[in-house]
Amino acid sequence: MANRRLKRKTMELPISRTRGAAILVIGDEILSGRTQDTNTGYIARWLGQLGIPVREARVVADVEAEIVAAVRHLSARYDYVFTTGGIGPTHDDITADSMARAFGTAIDFHPTVFAALAARYAALNVGTFNEARQRMARIPYGASLIGNSLSGAPGFQIGNVFVMAGIPAVMQAMLEDVRKRLVASQALSSVTVSAFLGEGTIAAGLARLQKTYPDVPLGSYPFSREGKFGTSLVARGADAAKLGEVRVALIDLVRAAGGEPL
Amino acid sequence: MANRRLKRKTMELPISRTRGAAILVIGDEILSGRTQDTNTGYIARWLGQLGIPVREARVVADVEAEIVAAVRHLSARYDYVFTTGGIGPTHDDITADSMARAFGTAIDFHPTVFAALAARYAALNVGTFNEARQRMARIPYGASLIGNSLSGAPGFQIGNVFVMAGIPAVMQAMLEDVRKRLVASQALSSVTVSAFLGEGTIAAGLARLQKTYPDVPLGSYPFSREGKFGTSLVARGADAAKLGEVRVALIDLVRAAGGEPL
Repeated sequence: MANRRLKRKTMELPISRTRGAAILVIGDEILSGRTQDTNTGYIARWLGQLGIPVREARVVADVEAEIVAAVRHLSARYDYVFTTGGIGPTHDDITADSMARAFGTAIDFHPTVFAALAARYAALNVGTFNEARQRMARIPYGASLIGNSLSGAPGFQIGNVFVMAGIPAVMQAMLEDVRKRLVASQALSSVTVSAFLGEGTIAAGLARLQKTYPDVPLGSYPFSREGKFGTSLVARGADAAKLGEVRVALIDLVRAAGGEPL
Repeated sequence: MANRRLKRKTMELPISRTRGAAILVIGDEILSGRTQDTNTGYIARWLGQLGIPVREARVVADVEAEIVAAVRHLSARYDYVFTTGGIGPTHDDITADSMARAFGTAIDFHPTVFAALAARYAALNVGTFNEARQRMARIPYGASLIGNSLSGAPGFQIGNVFVMAGIPAVMQAMLEDVRKRLVASQALSSVTVSAFLGEGTIAAGLARLQKTYPDVPLGSYPFSREGKFGTSLVARGADAAKLGEVRVALIDLVRAAGGEPL
């Protein structure tokens, strides 16, 4: 373990009220199509319940320059950035070092994390605490830890960036530790009205309805079910009363087009 | 139908030999977590078979400025860009107009597409060819069409950007029409060696192996199966002989660590 003993102070920026979040998925295995990313959808739904919309998502390779450029851009632009992947023990796990680079800070073994991981590997029959696993105790200066009830190795928060594991169950455990750090807005909810009608049949009416409710985003999503094509109309927002009105209007729209809500 | 009759000429750029591709997924429904994106993985695997690596993927909202900025950036940086979503008939389908804006070209109804769609709606019992559906015939000047054997409405290629539907089956049909336009490289393939060993147990050996084979990217991906943790070691490349060598080395690595390849 390194003998450097710089004093650690957390460098969390005052986090402003939400204008939204970005998700950054880090890993060659997603870009090759070998692994299907599901973290983006999970984080997006989880944030939606807190009223924090996801504005953008990116997937980058295990390449430091790519990670650094993406983190700097997203961190400057959005209230929060959530990253997944690249904090394990192997040579392609370069996320922690990349974050230190992105924020212009040093990185070293974190004494508390190092001790906790050493104790964990000594106590459990899960392998020796070798040099590779020690890498998981490397945390940038200025970061605060994100607990991980599943495997022990923590994530961390640096500035407005939450750095989490790529394994979905571990990432989800980390999110629970992140919740209290976020300034929640009103929860976003949605109403959906589906019918066996083509998108094109209701598009004009939907566009008119969007003009009537400019602050309630309306989406139209075609589907195929039981061999028939249909469309789901979705309205999103934080104002439940208004969403209720829109739902009635969507049902009227479907019926006026000769359909029946499913 | 518009009576403008500018002559259409395709504006395809000479496409250089691959340095790789980017994927741009367009749609609020992905960013809200309502819909699980699977197009990225499909396109990535499909391109991998052609030897074209995906370097980056992004998801942006149905917001013109976001789409335009992302397309311009990715189109300048990579050999190919593949977009999915936003070319349907509804008000939130703004991809075609955004592409025209990104490439600084005009957009109007494409006579051939308009006629084909009109004929299709007249012949099949799939609704009237109303104003909303006519929107699907809007194609930027300078674009060439991408056929769609499933639903009739085409995608298009503009510059090095392939603009495709969001519905997976339709997107996949369009990809088949894209294949002949791509300069394929040697197909990338991969070998995988999995074992019930922790990542940290084999990390040091894997890092050494990476140094021996610097041009064969090695990845390590933890998994949980039958209640046990394990690791898949993956090597990627176009050189089958070298991949064979690496596979043997990976098996040796696993056995030296006390594991047995699964």
